[in-house]
Amino acid sequence: MGYPERSWWGWGHADAALDDAACHRLAERTLRPWLPIDGALTPLPADPVLPKPRLSPPPTLAGAFLSDPLSRAGHAYGKAFRDVVRALHGELPNPPDLVCRPRTEPDVVAALDWAASTGTPIVPYGGGSSVVGGVEYRGEGPWVSLDLSRLDRVEEVDDVNLAVRVQAGVFGPALERALEPHGLTLRHLPQSFEFSTVGGWLATRSGGHYATGPTRIDHFVEAMRVLTPQGPVESPRVPASGAGPDPNGLFLGSEGALGAIVEAWLRVRPKPERRAKATILFRGYSQSVDATRELVQSGLRPANCRLLDPVEAMLNAGATDGQARLMLGFEGPDAALLPSALEICRAQGGTEAERSSGSFRQTFLRAPYTRDALVRLGLIVETVETACTWSRFEALHAAVLAAARAAAPDRVALVSCRFTHVYPDGPAPYFTIVTPGRRGAEVAIWDEIKAAVSDAIAAHGGTITHHHAVGRDHRPWYDAERSPLLQATLRAAKRTLDPRGVLNPGVLV
Amino acid sequence: MGYPERSWWGWGHADAALDDAACHRLAERTLRPWLPIDGALTPLPADPVLPKPRLSPPPTLAGAFLSDPLSRAGHAYGKAFRDVVRALHGELPNPPDLVCRPRTEPDVVAALDWAASTGTPIVPYGGGSSVVGGVEYRGEGPWVSLDLSRLDRVEEVDDVNLAVRVQAGVFGPALERALEPHGLTLRHLPQSFEFSTVGGWLATRSGGHYATGPTRIDHFVEAMRVLTPQGPVESPRVPASGAGPDPNGLFLGSEGALGAIVEAWLRVRPKPERRAKATILFRGYSQSVDATRELVQSGLRPANCRLLDPVEAMLNAGATDGQARLMLGFEGPDAALLPSALEICRAQGGTEAERSSGSFRQTFLRAPYTRDALVRLGLIVETVETACTWSRFEALHAAVLAAARAAAPDRVALVSCRFTHVYPDGPAPYFTIVTPGRRGAEVAIWDEIKAAVSDAIAAHGGTITHHHAVGRDHRPWYDAERSPLLQATLRAAKRTLDPRGVLNPGVLV
Repeated sequence: MGYPERSWWGWGHADAALDDAACHRLAERTLRPWLPIDGALTPLPADPVLPKPRLSPPPTLAGAFLSDPLSRAGHAYGKAFRDVVRALHGELPNPPDLVCRPRTEPDVVAALDWAASTGTPIVPYGGGSSVVGGVEYRGEGPWVSLDLSRLDRVEEVDDVNLAVRVQAGVFGPALERALEPHGLTLRHLPQSFEFSTVGGWLATRSGGHYATGPTRIDHFVEAMRVLTPQGPVESPRVPASGAGPDPNGLFLGSEGALGAIVEAWLRVRPKPERRAKATILFRGYSQSVDATRELVQSGLRPANCRLLDPVEAMLNAGATDGQARLMLGFEGPDAALLPSALEICRAQGGTEAERSSGSFRQTFLRAPYTRDALVRLGLIVETVETACTWSRFEALHAAVLAAARAAAPDRVALVSCRFTHVYPDGPAPYFTIVTPGRRGAEVAIWDEIKAAVSDAIAAHGGTITHHHAVGRDHRPWYDAERSPLLQATLRAAKRTLDPRGVLNPGVLV
Repeated sequence: MGYPERSWWGWGHADAALDDAACHRLAERTLRPWLPIDGALTPLPADPVLPKPRLSPPPTLAGAFLSDPLSRAGHAYGKAFRDVVRALHGELPNPPDLVCRPRTEPDVVAALDWAASTGTPIVPYGGGSSVVGGVEYRGEGPWVSLDLSRLDRVEEVDDVNLAVRVQAGVFGPALERALEPHGLTLRHLPQSFEFSTVGGWLATRSGGHYATGPTRIDHFVEAMRVLTPQGPVESPRVPASGAGPDPNGLFLGSEGALGAIVEAWLRVRPKPERRAKATILFRGYSQSVDATRELVQSGLRPANCRLLDPVEAMLNAGATDGQARLMLGFEGPDAALLPSALEICRAQGGTEAERSSGSFRQTFLRAPYTRDALVRLGLIVETVETACTWSRFEALHAAVLAAARAAAPDRVALVSCRFTHVYPDGPAPYFTIVTPGRRGAEVAIWDEIKAAVSDAIAAHGGTITHHHAVGRDHRPWYDAERSPLLQATLRAAKRTLDPRGVLNPGVLV
């Protein structure tokens, strides 16, 4: 899918964005009761006018390169708030000079060779849905975006061993369409599902939609094939191995800094035949947290276990009763275990809602479009996610709320929290922050809020990211979170695989 | 526990070894019907007489060092067949000159500093139960065994987040004893459980006893603390993180070559209140394999799912009916799902045994003592384990049986197979090979059989080890299995953390 079908400045399909009327409705009906807004709407940006590329592609590879302004502008940033604001306002001081879209592995090799031999920064790009500054270059000179989305073949569906061999540029829907005739599914549904690729999921350790059990992309990887400037790295295709450190471990989460992931064997599974779900209401938030903890520590493994605090329930499930909502789902043989989960919830004071909230999935996938509308309305929007132990959660939650409000203009902010994933030892809370901005100062305000909440998370024992990756935006907190010697080993790996340091400079090391 | 309570030449407690009468009974009752044996028994070895240590401990650390012959002999090898044979015959050409048993982390640091500054090879040692040559030094010069078993404190049991902070030298039973009053368990039960340590499990990516779900030690790690010659490396204690490559990934499976693991936070769980188990008999082995595959691909997660082929059923469960046996167990809320599993088995022609085979656990833990008795009886014994996809299994199984028999003296060998772990994409088969040896040539014969079956495994798409680690014995096949560039990154990590190359030289890189 190319431009202009894809939005070059915002999320997803250009024609799926909220139109002006929808933006105004959103402002009047949903926002005005909560936040002071002026109702003005930043106009959609004109097609970008960019300086001429400072690079020429190597002649033998010329067919794999794009240099038109829409492609270059579309690859300048990911899709974080600060990316959308900047694109919307035409701030594109250093877009990629070229976009390389190889169709074959040999072309990827040739592109990496060319980049290494010329010392040209080259930034691997899957679907471009990064929300952490993972696919932009923040240096000064010329650079290339390496768009891997033409490596788009689902190569082999293995019905016997329930696995699929897939090229890294395959997007979520295309993969599921290929699995569908086999009755299989990867069952990995990050919010970016429609606009992110297998390679992007692997490079960023994508978290997936399901709350427990195998959900992170790491859990589905049998084998990977990565091309580095020094040559290919391939892991053996086996269900498990104890031979040395996990051979996929270095590349899962490598964020394009160590190589370009080009192919993987992923585990798939039969589509579950049974499902059982329920929504449980709790008058008190801390009760609902306790119930969730008890549930996940009981040995039950709900596929969904999404605890929405009252604000989140209002924003995402339209609930105005001020109660916390636990959206529970069980799949396959586990569907028979829903009653045990309800028992635990009832003992903690939960009551079953008469009908379960059914609209979450659509709201979930539409959320980034809504975010873009909020940007046009001049609001600051950020989603912040982490994971911490249960005993740290209450203080972390309070600190994030306080930090976001304190850093917000006029200290007015709508802050909500849901659990995206839950583990026996702690939740992965996901905060949404919406606050009125000041036209022209959006990025500066965002940066301040981001720093304040990230500091709060770090101070309360949370990781800087559970599933959004590090990119450039999380880098200072990542550096604080990891041991200096671990950073030194990553630097050594980088020197081994990318001695010229051309791959995604500024990321990880 | 020290010597002479621990056996310096064989498995476990010296007084738990089979005595001469028991060895003779084993020969007559169990072996003679199957294998030609002469019935002679190698006598127990005399206390070892060793050359004088070629090293003196640094004066400030002298209290942490042992140099008595029993301690040095006991730390010369692990507990593989070839280790026991050599020790039994008094072949100890290069035992450690000193055994360092630090009581504190600063002493570990001092020992590593001393080793690095003097260039002395130093081999981390937990319980010493390696069966792959992981704790011996195969160089020529003087060396030190770094026994971490005095770092033996269970430091903190966290009831809220279900985790335990534990020093690396804690043995399995001590850890479970500390968790017991809290109603908690790590539920990680490798066969070496009584004689292996937390640090050893982490360094070798120990597999644990349970068949599905969280079972490998990797799954239980929240955080680790590792001391390297360049300083400490610590990972943050969080339930999950997507910040860069998994910070524990480099040290899980590092086998003492990158640092000494000294502490970890491990996830524990409540002791399951419910259990349901059954044994299913199958007339045909391939039917039983198909049933096992279908079961584990159905979404059921049996805690135990141990498929014994007819020979294994005979050796380990005393069954002489020639049928394959699937030993199934479900725990906790999953106990309710046993009937669904039985349904799948029945559809594949399985029938439920009238009573489930109950003696497996004891036989399992006693197996290494029995192995030592077989060694004294002059037999060659090896256990070989791997993991492969389901579609590779039939050919791999046939190839391992054929290779073991072809390499055995007079082509006579008893070879059995069980699944220790099962995954949706394949089983982890575990082969036991017993064959008559030739006195004096045991190690040479073992080496030949080992090479033959390892080649067969590699040729049929199996990994060289699912959970025994690489050590020195699996090294050639590990080198063939991993990409050269991955090896180069490990070498770079080694140079970063252990620039003098003193840590467990010959292992991994």
